[in-house]
Amino acid sequence: MLIDDLPKGEFLITNAKIITCDKVQRVYTQGDIHIKDGVIADLGAHLTLPGINAFDAQGLVALPGLINGHTHAGMTLLRGLKDDVDLWEWLNSYIWPAESCMEPEDIYWGSLLACIEMLKAGVTTFVDMYFHEGETARAVEEIGIRAYLCRGIIEGRDQGAAGLEETNALLARWHNGAAGRIKITLGPHAPYTCSIPFLRRIRDFAIGQDLPVHIHVAETKQEVEKSQRAYGFTPVAMLKRAGLLDPRIQLIAAHCVHLTTEDIRLMKEAGVGVVHCLGSNLKLGSGIAPVIELLNAGVKVCYGTDGAASNNNLDIIREMRLAALIHNGISGKPGILPASQIISMATNHAAAILKRPDLGSLEIGKRADIVLLDTSGCHWYPREDAVSSLIYSGSWADVDTVLVNGEFVVHKGKVLTVNEEEVKAQIEKRAWRIKNAKSIV
Amino acid sequence: MLIDDLPKGEFLITNAKIITCDKVQRVYTQGDIHIKDGVIADLGAHLTLPGINAFDAQGLVALPGLINGHTHAGMTLLRGLKDDVDLWEWLNSYIWPAESCMEPEDIYWGSLLACIEMLKAGVTTFVDMYFHEGETARAVEEIGIRAYLCRGIIEGRDQGAAGLEETNALLARWHNGAAGRIKITLGPHAPYTCSIPFLRRIRDFAIGQDLPVHIHVAETKQEVEKSQRAYGFTPVAMLKRAGLLDPRIQLIAAHCVHLTTEDIRLMKEAGVGVVHCLGSNLKLGSGIAPVIELLNAGVKVCYGTDGAASNNNLDIIREMRLAALIHNGISGKPGILPASQIISMATNHAAAILKRPDLGSLEIGKRADIVLLDTSGCHWYPREDAVSSLIYSGSWADVDTVLVNGEFVVHKGKVLTVNEEEVKAQIEKRAWRIKNAKSIV
Repeated sequence: MLIDDLPKGEFLITNAKIITCDKVQRVYTQGDIHIKDGVIADLGAHLTLPGINAFDAQGLVALPGLINGHTHAGMTLLRGLKDDVDLWEWLNSYIWPAESCMEPEDIYWGSLLACIEMLKAGVTTFVDMYFHEGETARAVEEIGIRAYLCRGIIEGRDQGAAGLEETNALLARWHNGAAGRIKITLGPHAPYTCSIPFLRRIRDFAIGQDLPVHIHVAETKQEVEKSQRAYGFTPVAMLKRAGLLDPRIQLIAAHCVHLTTEDIRLMKEAGVGVVHCLGSNLKLGSGIAPVIELLNAGVKVCYGTDGAASNNNLDIIREMRLAALIHNGISGKPGILPASQIISMATNHAAAILKRPDLGSLEIGKRADIVLLDTSGCHWYPREDAVSSLIYSGSWADVDTVLVNGEFVVHKGKVLTVNEEEVKAQIEKRAWRIKNAKSIV
Repeated sequence: MLIDDLPKGEFLITNAKIITCDKVQRVYTQGDIHIKDGVIADLGAHLTLPGINAFDAQGLVALPGLINGHTHAGMTLLRGLKDDVDLWEWLNSYIWPAESCMEPEDIYWGSLLACIEMLKAGVTTFVDMYFHEGETARAVEEIGIRAYLCRGIIEGRDQGAAGLEETNALLARWHNGAAGRIKITLGPHAPYTCSIPFLRRIRDFAIGQDLPVHIHVAETKQEVEKSQRAYGFTPVAMLKRAGLLDPRIQLIAAHCVHLTTEDIRLMKEAGVGVVHCLGSNLKLGSGIAPVIELLNAGVKVCYGTDGAASNNNLDIIREMRLAALIHNGISGKPGILPASQIISMATNHAAAILKRPDLGSLEIGKRADIVLLDTSGCHWYPREDAVSSLIYSGSWADVDTVLVNGEFVVHKGKVLTVNEEEVKAQIEKRAWRIKNAKSIV
């Protein structure tokens, strides 16, 4: 099929195996999806709609677009800058010096590269925190992905007020922009880089304007120890004192590696959503978040890749396999986190964390954010449970076609909306400039 | 390039970035490899050999073929049969009933599927243990991969003598067969399924005929406890009593998850090679092998995928990333197992375990088992250290071309030597028959 032939507006996806990720984990062996104005108008075993254009998905598996709950898209420009060091050395000696040389347009190109990689891996929504985030918004608008963006605010760098001003500017320019695909959130960086009074300002801002708050929490043991020394309580307890653990606030808490039982209770009570960044936490030696305990307590958990400089991918399929292996493996209880739960976290749990009942599953009335997997690869044989096959042997390379808001953005593994070669050339030039500016490596 | 145009016999691979995996981890930014009669005749920055056919590898990264140190190729037919259960339930309720229905030809087709997947993922040598292993040999001969094959002998099923007879038959028919690509080994299944007297027969056989011994060791805590109850010592100490920890014997010990300090000392003393099967061990809830302790003690460690029914892939690139993340992550010391060491284990460590000085690196005089990676994917940008990029963001899907013994077996991601579609069709038919024969699922 030529790219020009891909249907638009109102059309059918026919003959797909459909993994709905709805509450009862329904799977259609062969089904059709009727898409109209960016929404799933109907879905079933055999839809008959004469005169409607069809995209034949014979042999493909449809699933809801995956959600990457925590990343730093612009940072993709720093992928591989330094591997095999811990978080503090990595930040102080490599990442922060490099970031100090990054120009707004670097963030635009880094974000485009990130969005290309995510879309090709079936990620249709990402939750981002970085600086020059308006540049990320430009990339998101252009490429056609869905995103939650915020200015990450480190108060100590005297960016408290400036960060809030930038947030206001982002809100004015981008909130609900790009056909509703862009949402702006508040982004206090972490309890260890923001004071309680500043976090209280964030709380008031969030409640006043009904905005989610995206924050790093308890990523390392050192962070928790520092909090105990400074305040006499944990980072989560500090957030409680700052008023951010409030059911009126949609708190998106990334990492949450080092938690007490009381922390988990507080988070459940406030409806906090946890973003599990397993690949990054392992790579930087930070530890393994207590996901089983969080889920058992009723806390919603989704996945985040973190930035590509500490993962080094933006691939939620890889994160799902890693989480399945790690949590089943270290508990010594295989099946404690079965494949059906693993995929829920990347789809409907993540949508619940974002308070988006219109995302996270393939059901009538939901946004048409859809991934079609090519399962002809040898690693998909013999044919068994499709969810389990995806988690345990699937790959980003199986992603054939991706739709966001009912529009085709990837087909036959290629991004349709931007020139990938131009993006790569820009990345090469800019990564070289940044490294040489500070003789980082 | 048309497949018919691929050079044969004597030719050059030109303009590749070459990761040699030699002792000093030499990397050529752009280099050529002169191949003659299946061997690397020369290798350097610019070779001039007028009149010799060339394969232009511009933009590709060359590395030595990866080695999968422990698998059960025929078992690929059972991939996905049952996920999310522990080893004992998996074996007793699913795998063993299914295996009891498998016919010799099932093993042939299952092995072909395994070999397709391995070659496409850059694995050029695998070490296998299963039954009807002559069928695996047929598949290996046909597809052009390199393999160490053995009849896995579970003594208690009265297969002790029969297993040795089958081993003799394999030796007579296949040892050094397929242009030297096939080697036969001895395959006592495990210390818990073989007695000390039987293992002593294996020892004598191995020393008498100079054959490697491939065995599962200390895969689960229960196995170690059972050994302690039955003998009063660990599985490794039991191997010592059976005479198998002997520098004259090339012992290939798969798993080795639960080891004491004394076990590790005994293994180092005897030159045992450990095959780290991390994905499988995690998936079945068996634990994490003490790889850092083994390496610190001077024990050689390579990777194994184990069978596709418990991994669910045969992909050493995925195992390398998993090992890097897990061992750096759980130690809390990122860099304790750096990317350069991670790749050594898949190449030169593995070759040392197989006592094959002619494999495991790209150097003059070595066998031309070569993988060429396409690094044009967005996840390879920006360009940084190629080894680190491969480990932390690379994928089986980046494998473009593979040579074994100087012959092209994969090109543009397609296996050249067998009909993949026919193999998949056979797998579907046979997997269905097996499941229905015993109403396994």
